[in-house]
Amino acid sequence: MQRILSSEITLHVGEKVQVAGWIHRRRELKSVAFLILRDRAGLAQIVVSEPATRDQLRVLPEETVVEVIGVVSANPSAPGGVEIIDPHLEPLTEPAAAAPFDLFRPELTASLPTILDYAPVALRHPSLRQAAVLSAQAVAGFRSTLDGLGFTAIHTPKIVASATESGANVFALDYFGTPAYLAQSPQFYKQMMVGVLERVYEVGPVFRAEPHETGRHLAQYTSLDVELGFIRDHFDVMAIARDVVAGMVAATGLDAAIPAEIPWVHFADAVEMVGAALGEDLSGEPDLAPAHERWLGDWALREHGSDFVFVTGYPMVKRPFYTHPEPGREAYSNSFDLIFRGLELATGGQRLHRYSDYAAALAARGESTAAYESYLRAFAHGMPPHGGFAIGLERFVARLTGAANVRTTTLFPRDRYRVTP
Amino acid sequence: MQRILSSEITLHVGEKVQVAGWIHRRRELKSVAFLILRDRAGLAQIVVSEPATRDQLRVLPEETVVEVIGVVSANPSAPGGVEIIDPHLEPLTEPAAAAPFDLFRPELTASLPTILDYAPVALRHPSLRQAAVLSAQAVAGFRSTLDGLGFTAIHTPKIVASATESGANVFALDYFGTPAYLAQSPQFYKQMMVGVLERVYEVGPVFRAEPHETGRHLAQYTSLDVELGFIRDHFDVMAIARDVVAGMVAATGLDAAIPAEIPWVHFADAVEMVGAALGEDLSGEPDLAPAHERWLGDWALREHGSDFVFVTGYPMVKRPFYTHPEPGREAYSNSFDLIFRGLELATGGQRLHRYSDYAAALAARGESTAAYESYLRAFAHGMPPHGGFAIGLERFVARLTGAANVRTTTLFPRDRYRVTP
Repeated sequence: MQRILSSEITLHVGEKVQVAGWIHRRRELKSVAFLILRDRAGLAQIVVSEPATRDQLRVLPEETVVEVIGVVSANPSAPGGVEIIDPHLEPLTEPAAAAPFDLFRPELTASLPTILDYAPVALRHPSLRQAAVLSAQAVAGFRSTLDGLGFTAIHTPKIVASATESGANVFALDYFGTPAYLAQSPQFYKQMMVGVLERVYEVGPVFRAEPHETGRHLAQYTSLDVELGFIRDHFDVMAIARDVVAGMVAATGLDAAIPAEIPWVHFADAVEMVGAALGEDLSGEPDLAPAHERWLGDWALREHGSDFVFVTGYPMVKRPFYTHPEPGREAYSNSFDLIFRGLELATGGQRLHRYSDYAAALAARGESTAAYESYLRAFAHGMPPHGGFAIGLERFVARLTGAANVRTTTLFPRDRYRVTP
Repeated sequence: MQRILSSEITLHVGEKVQVAGWIHRRRELKSVAFLILRDRAGLAQIVVSEPATRDQLRVLPEETVVEVIGVVSANPSAPGGVEIIDPHLEPLTEPAAAAPFDLFRPELTASLPTILDYAPVALRHPSLRQAAVLSAQAVAGFRSTLDGLGFTAIHTPKIVASATESGANVFALDYFGTPAYLAQSPQFYKQMMVGVLERVYEVGPVFRAEPHETGRHLAQYTSLDVELGFIRDHFDVMAIARDVVAGMVAATGLDAAIPAEIPWVHFADAVEMVGAALGEDLSGEPDLAPAHERWLGDWALREHGSDFVFVTGYPMVKRPFYTHPEPGREAYSNSFDLIFRGLELATGGQRLHRYSDYAAALAARGESTAAYESYLRAFAHGMPPHGGFAIGLERFVARLTGAANVRTTTLFPRDRYRVTP
């Protein structure tokens, strides 16, 4: 007999069917017991009347995996309008051990450390499971948007000879007896691949030895990286970023307000607006604090009906060496942050594309070109004006669902104190 | 003026257009020069007659990036039937440096080390670029096949507290002062996620500190991992694997012979067949050598018209502890290898799913359950019969294209002696 899913039961009223899944909940009444079975499609109600089967169910705790053969019966008062009656139960495992929380309750009432320690079980709870499904949907939306725009997916090295963005926060490893590092981003590789494919993206892990213990930092996260050539400036990149986040939101089926053109404000103006509104003197500040990003998020929603806002032109001093300066205002850059509901979601911008500009930028920072030899080769051999951005998947899902901590929108999160499960 | 792609030129005969790309090749004739421009869509021929523009082109070496504005002219003798005349050239970069090979020649005539050292440039050659495009297409086929079968994409930790498959060939790193390792596979995580989502897949990097210096081993490769619950045995997994590789091949547009059911042969029978054919005594052998796999590949093509063949039932002694034994013949296992044109492409099988079976299997190997505590938690709390497999992306593309070395089907390969570019 072929197993059907809980969502297919309604198609088989009056027939004998086989379902299988986890015992989500048991409820014993006087003359009957209810078994709620959970499979990947949802829940099914099974009515157990026969005394021997009731005895059997009594010793099968929640989460035990069972196969059930029974007859589908229409019952308007059952969830979904159908239930399975006269069941034969066949356990597929031993009786399940008890977890420190009940998965059938609407909320997972356990501390975050307990939830994370018991992740293989806790993730079965609808709230956490849903974050995993939304992540997959968001990535699918990311891909399909970019596939439609002529981008090619790439996979690049995660073990690198030198730190990408800066020397800090990098994990060191022993690579066949020589030191190497885990890539903090695919930045250099996606740029080099613009020289090959013009438009590329990568979905992959990045690694940050983050000393921060916050609700928005992880030691490993999934970075959604985009890079494209033949742009005029960062506004071409921002237009792609807008389409990408719109595609991601749409793929999840959840709501977020994204106008056809996401509002943007130059860093210099943002600092003035925020400073005036909050009564702070921010002149000379090279960056925005989280409170400032929150204010800008509120402003974008209030003034432009948008959950997203770009801040452009961040000061060069706070941006990496490959950042393209703003023509005519060289202290600022052709870069941007994308703020989603008051929190930084993505960073991007136009990059330098001339070899001589790289040599000058590195010299100005007191760095030699030798350390970047193979990266700089791409530029020596001809690279178009280009730019890109990166979105943190876990942050995106957290922001979209209102989760306070990215650890609940990540499967098996890694942080300073956690490397298991 | 809006840039168009080389593939769009034919739609604009008689119009002034803008194209942009790399100078792929220049050819000087007596009264005219030809500039072949390369962009992500292909090549475009540009005819340069004006003396000043010819002088300009003379100092722009191959790979320099230029923007060209000119008029599209039909010319039956031009490649594609069109060319651009009366061009205005605008270099977007400095003149490109000379590479140690010519990208415009049909073959990349350089040694493998030179090609890999110059990867940012070498990958622009059609032969290597094509491998990158095929990889993306194969992964898209992998995803779309599994999405259609109710699978969910996941992203799991690459930094783990203990080695997955065995203690050997693992990269160690310093994780905030404590030792940790790079994941050799997402095996444990995809199994745990069967408990959450039933059917999962992951496309991601895996890491092997491979001492081998061969054409088929890499220190990092892209693993296409699949795991599914509620199977009867490994044949259910093999049916999915068949659909997946068929979807991957179809997505590339290349040819490989895949029957609706891939032929399979039990390890015990394979050993007898191969031994008889090659005149070797293989009785008691626990594994197949590469020459044996080649023979089986030839046999499958000859007898079954298939480029693929499954070998099932590998001896338990050569399989990891989570492998499900063959019921009634416990020295063999419910596992399989998938051989593609004589080379192992994928490994998979049914896994143990009962906690007590895990405890016994670990005890039999002299290992304690403590080291696997968080993994085993999934089984203690109810897991269905399940199994899965993993495909190496670079091997798949190499086998499909006939490439002799996976280093040419990998962007920026990593091996014992190479961690750059």
